[in-house]
Amino acid sequence: MIAVLKKGTTQAQLDHLISWLRGQNLDVHISQGEEYTILGLIGSTGNVDMELLASLDIVESVKRVAEPYKQCSRQFHPNSTVITVGNAKIGGDHFCIIAGPCSVETEAQIIEVAQKVKAAGADLLRGGAFKPRTSPYDFQGLKDEGIALLLKAKKETGLPIVTEIMNANHLDLFADVDVIQVGARNMQNFDLLKELGKTNKPILLKRGLANTLKELLMSAEYIMSEGNQNIILCERGIRAFDTYSRNTLDLTAVPMLHELTHLPVIVDPSHATGMVRLVPPMALASAASGADGVMVEVHNDPMRALCDGAQSLKPEQFAVLARQMRTVREAIAP
Amino acid sequence: MIAVLKKGTTQAQLDHLISWLRGQNLDVHISQGEEYTILGLIGSTGNVDMELLASLDIVESVKRVAEPYKQCSRQFHPNSTVITVGNAKIGGDHFCIIAGPCSVETEAQIIEVAQKVKAAGADLLRGGAFKPRTSPYDFQGLKDEGIALLLKAKKETGLPIVTEIMNANHLDLFADVDVIQVGARNMQNFDLLKELGKTNKPILLKRGLANTLKELLMSAEYIMSEGNQNIILCERGIRAFDTYSRNTLDLTAVPMLHELTHLPVIVDPSHATGMVRLVPPMALASAASGADGVMVEVHNDPMRALCDGAQSLKPEQFAVLARQMRTVREAIAP
Amino acid sequence: MIAVLKKGTTQAQLDHLISWLRGQNLDVHISQGEEYTILGLIGSTGNVDMELLASLDIVESVKRVAEPYKQCSRQFHPNSTVITVGNAKIGGDHFCIIAGPCSVETEAQIIEVAQKVKAAGADLLRGGAFKPRTSPYDFQGLKDEGIALLLKAKKETGLPIVTEIMNANHLDLFADVDVIQVGARNMQNFDLLKELGKTNKPILLKRGLANTLKELLMSAEYIMSEGNQNIILCERGIRAFDTYSRNTLDLTAVPMLHELTHLPVIVDPSHATGMVRLVPPMALASAASGADGVMVEVHNDPMRALCDGAQSLKPEQFAVLARQMRTVREAIAP
Amino acid sequence: MIAVLKKGTTQAQLDHLISWLRGQNLDVHISQGEEYTILGLIGSTGNVDMELLASLDIVESVKRVAEPYKQCSRQFHPNSTVITVGNAKIGGDHFCIIAGPCSVETEAQIIEVAQKVKAAGADLLRGGAFKPRTSPYDFQGLKDEGIALLLKAKKETGLPIVTEIMNANHLDLFADVDVIQVGARNMQNFDLLKELGKTNKPILLKRGLANTLKELLMSAEYIMSEGNQNIILCERGIRAFDTYSRNTLDLTAVPMLHELTHLPVIVDPSHATGMVRLVPPMALASAASGADGVMVEVHNDPMRALCDGAQSLKPEQFAVLARQMRTVREAIAP
Repeated sequence: MIAVLKKGTTQAQLDHLISWLRGQNLDVHISQGEEYTILGLIGSTGNVDMELLASLDIVESVKRVAEPYKQCSRQFHPNSTVITVGNAKIGGDHFCIIAGPCSVETEAQIIEVAQKVKAAGADLLRGGAFKPRTSPYDFQGLKDEGIALLLKAKKETGLPIVTEIMNANHLDLFADVDVIQVGARNMQNFDLLKELGKTNKPILLKRGLANTLKELLMSAEYIMSEGNQNIILCERGIRAFDTYSRNTLDLTAVPMLHELTHLPVIVDPSHATGMVRLVPPMALASAASGADGVMVEVHNDPMRALCDGAQSLKPEQFAVLARQMRTVREAIAP
Repeated sequence: MIAVLKKGTTQAQLDHLISWLRGQNLDVHISQGEEYTILGLIGSTGNVDMELLASLDIVESVKRVAEPYKQCSRQFHPNSTVITVGNAKIGGDHFCIIAGPCSVETEAQIIEVAQKVKAAGADLLRGGAFKPRTSPYDFQGLKDEGIALLLKAKKETGLPIVTEIMNANHLDLFADVDVIQVGARNMQNFDLLKELGKTNKPILLKRGLANTLKELLMSAEYIMSEGNQNIILCERGIRAFDTYSRNTLDLTAVPMLHELTHLPVIVDPSHATGMVRLVPPMALASAASGADGVMVEVHNDPMRALCDGAQSLKPEQFAVLARQMRTVREAIAP
Repeated sequence: MIAVLKKGTTQAQLDHLISWLRGQNLDVHISQGEEYTILGLIGSTGNVDMELLASLDIVESVKRVAEPYKQCSRQFHPNSTVITVGNAKIGGDHFCIIAGPCSVETEAQIIEVAQKVKAAGADLLRGGAFKPRTSPYDFQGLKDEGIALLLKAKKETGLPIVTEIMNANHLDLFADVDVIQVGARNMQNFDLLKELGKTNKPILLKRGLANTLKELLMSAEYIMSEGNQNIILCERGIRAFDTYSRNTLDLTAVPMLHELTHLPVIVDPSHATGMVRLVPPMALASAASGADGVMVEVHNDPMRALCDGAQSLKPEQFAVLARQMRTVREAIAP
Repeated sequence: MIAVLKKGTTQAQLDHLISWLRGQNLDVHISQGEEYTILGLIGSTGNVDMELLASLDIVESVKRVAEPYKQCSRQFHPNSTVITVGNAKIGGDHFCIIAGPCSVETEAQIIEVAQKVKAAGADLLRGGAFKPRTSPYDFQGLKDEGIALLLKAKKETGLPIVTEIMNANHLDLFADVDVIQVGARNMQNFDLLKELGKTNKPILLKRGLANTLKELLMSAEYIMSEGNQNIILCERGIRAFDTYSRNTLDLTAVPMLHELTHLPVIVDPSHATGMVRLVPPMALASAASGADGVMVEVHNDPMRALCDGAQSLKPEQFAVLARQMRTVREAIAP
């Protein structure tokens, strides 16, 4: 950690600060410039309150040198993590397509969608059983019954399934689920993350609407610090000032996360844009940006969907898109 | 709900849409303008997927007329709610000061702070026992022991206490807590909100970093829809683009929330700004904006605080501030 | 325009409002719902102060039905505009690559870069002569001399040139420039836009850092309202909360602008990301999103560049990228 | 400037970098830590391309120690600047109220408003003659005629006047104007700033919607670097994600700017909120935050105003507010 002191800091103030820092078991290296004094702090700086230090009267600014995330950092683990789920591989040189309806509604619906997305080339089936909704008066999902229907669709098609958890008390219901999703609103529900860290299930962790990439990595670190290393990160749009689409897809996060971490990174253009018309161009852009996969909503009858019909492709639209995404990946292959 | 159709919509498309809307038990009123056709939808529009409707090819835009929140709306409850906690009143014509350390650390610390903030005029004592931290490697709070220490400080001083819950499974530990806080990161942890709705404890609900006022009200509605009407809203800064302070305090939320809801609204300038030097001016501004209260962090030894020392006032700074806030309130009294 | 009135509006208030609206030459259609009264306003609503109307005590909300931009709207001009500059075509089915250094520095530099980007497949040459810099103490460009050097490079290679204007008083210097760029900071410099509207030069109009797509279109409308229809829109990143890249590239703007307007839309991933490593993936994503072109910074010696070397590709990196972008375009061709 | 190098940097790479830095006339101090190497760069670091340095493969991050603004920094000029305009003083211990209509419309209108705001305690009169409007089809102001009417109102009341400039070519028209305003959209119109720097008129510089405090200070520096030291900074709302008010008033900017600069800082709650009902609470909050003044819109007949009637107070509302603001200032006086 580096601390830059203000001009005019007296020797007495400097001595006082250094003794306080040493009291926290830090080594302090002093570089005296013409205008500024710079302190290099060596030791367990993870325990230092950086904001407190920055708030002192004599401190101009503070900079952390080492990132506070370790297990998910590419520095400590240069090779890309590849997660295997059934026949699907996520990460490394693979490109994975996850598709399915926003919500599981009926057995007929989920099985029809599963069969069609499989035929079109999807690698995993997604479907919501527990639904986080902004309003308490909106449809909240079929819950345990929804998971049972997903498992039927898995049995029917062989596709591994992805579905969202909202409460660690429900973990038993997820015993046969292949990938457990943590939604954007729960990205910093730290108690939930810790419980998921005690399982060995692959976790699909969505970036929160207002969370930085570093915060996303710290949330992955919460899971990893409990032992579970199988994490898939997902960019799904952030909150910016324009309202023409539901959120602002921050696609640059893909190459940047690939630089910072060895974990796979996928994109969800359906939730990011909220509009069918915008999904195919942004799914193609995601493939071209180097994402390890794309998750798109597909519904056999979007006009009658109980949830998020606005952003669901029809199976035939999805089939065209899946083909185009594979072609784009070939186009950019090294 | 109002739907504006695009120019060039054919009669057949219009008929198809209307029959789909009527199939959802809606009455449809048609206004044919020279350029645009406008549909007024009457009935249980709460169940209509507004985004789906907006995404149809022939629909230009959709507008909800009635707000989806009901119980917290001032339209349905014109008088301001006043919440009584011990001797303190929050809401209406009262101005309430909540003060205390970020984290409970030791018995001596919490009792000293409690005594000093009480002497300076605080109405409630705050202190964190369960701490949501971005990093899994940071201090996570004293947990149940922290609550026990808060209860000792309450016994010693008579101040009612406010502390944060992170997990509904911990509710038993909060039996003697006066006000339960829901942190910004859990504002949309809907399962937690529902459990709190089943209690009759006052809930201090903090606005999420990227949440609109409407979303904050919908989260209050989650609690109220389960039966608990005792909610205090708290503005604590949002995430915008500038980084000079930790977050951007959105003080205009205070008069706007007072217009939209009957629930009390307080402000937390300590977490919003993250810097001691910025807390007093923003606390005074909060008082002047008409907030029903202010929550500020106070620590007997900020330089040694285990958490958020950067934003904690010393007791003597708090005493000056508390006096000034009361004077500002008198200055703006009608 | 639609105005929704609040519950509890009296007949006298309603009559007063209607007479005020009719005084502004508007027809008023009244729809009386059970809970709400809705007014449809017909006529020259462009002159109505929508915010004033919305601020009235009895008005719940106001919605504009017709967009205030006309000449750039696809509704009034369904076919995509194609702009021809030398041998290059921008818009329609064409994909255009613009490349060159941030700043023109020397004759040798600009000619070498021009030759290399031409060989690699660029359609236009970019280079800054007048440079808007955040600090008055930074290099401000070679100005008229820079334009003279660009014209030499054009003569040498046949590539049409794009360069930025900062002051309408300089227009004479741009007589032989092929495309005049308006930078993000000047997107709402309305006096400059009007002057450019009086020329017949193609204008490359960059989106401001905090401007909505509608505001971008209104700025295009400023130029078009003076007679100049040759406008190329450019997405170059917006300001959001994360700071890992210089700005947040809002790629979803590409398909959305294509829906709203007939004008061509290109992307500048160099300024958006600010880092060489992020430019190729985002340029490829831009191509895949359906953009009509991409503008990238290329410098023969980025380490010695006077400006924005951090985001400049070397010519050999650009050659690989240009090839990949063309392949991606073939992959997504219908 | 400090550069932190990545782990694994070889000696050869380090030598190469150091020689490149020394080639730019910098002294380089090397601190070798266990994990990281830190370079301290001494000399004219203002000329170093910080982003280029940060983009090098072996560089982890770069930090500027000295701020790039000098003349407006409080470090170099500890005493607060006080600007005198007629009988009014802006800065230091003074609290200044600027009031008037958004646009000058008629002689009767501007004189009536001027007389009323003077009677209510305003120190300066504001009024727009040149109006920047998002749409080219909106009222653009009375221009030179508007300035003539303002001068009549000044003669009638003795109030100094503030009005906005949009084009340096109009400077002659501003010869008798007391304070020239630069609007938010022109905050980075650097050519305009430089021209204003050559005058000795007080300049009221508004913060751009998406500009950081540092960028605001750099724009002040543009004016000061040409010789004009009379600058008043104005916070008028930034662009964040919520849309309930027109912009998000960032009031914390007031104490932060007071720390960074000696220039006076005022607030414009009318443009920030866009709604009459929100103006008084935010004007009072501005006064309580320590702002050196407040600028509010006042119109004798807001319902008929040609521009921004939605945010204009009536004179009698302003009179109450002016009184309350003065009382709040007394309440917080040391």
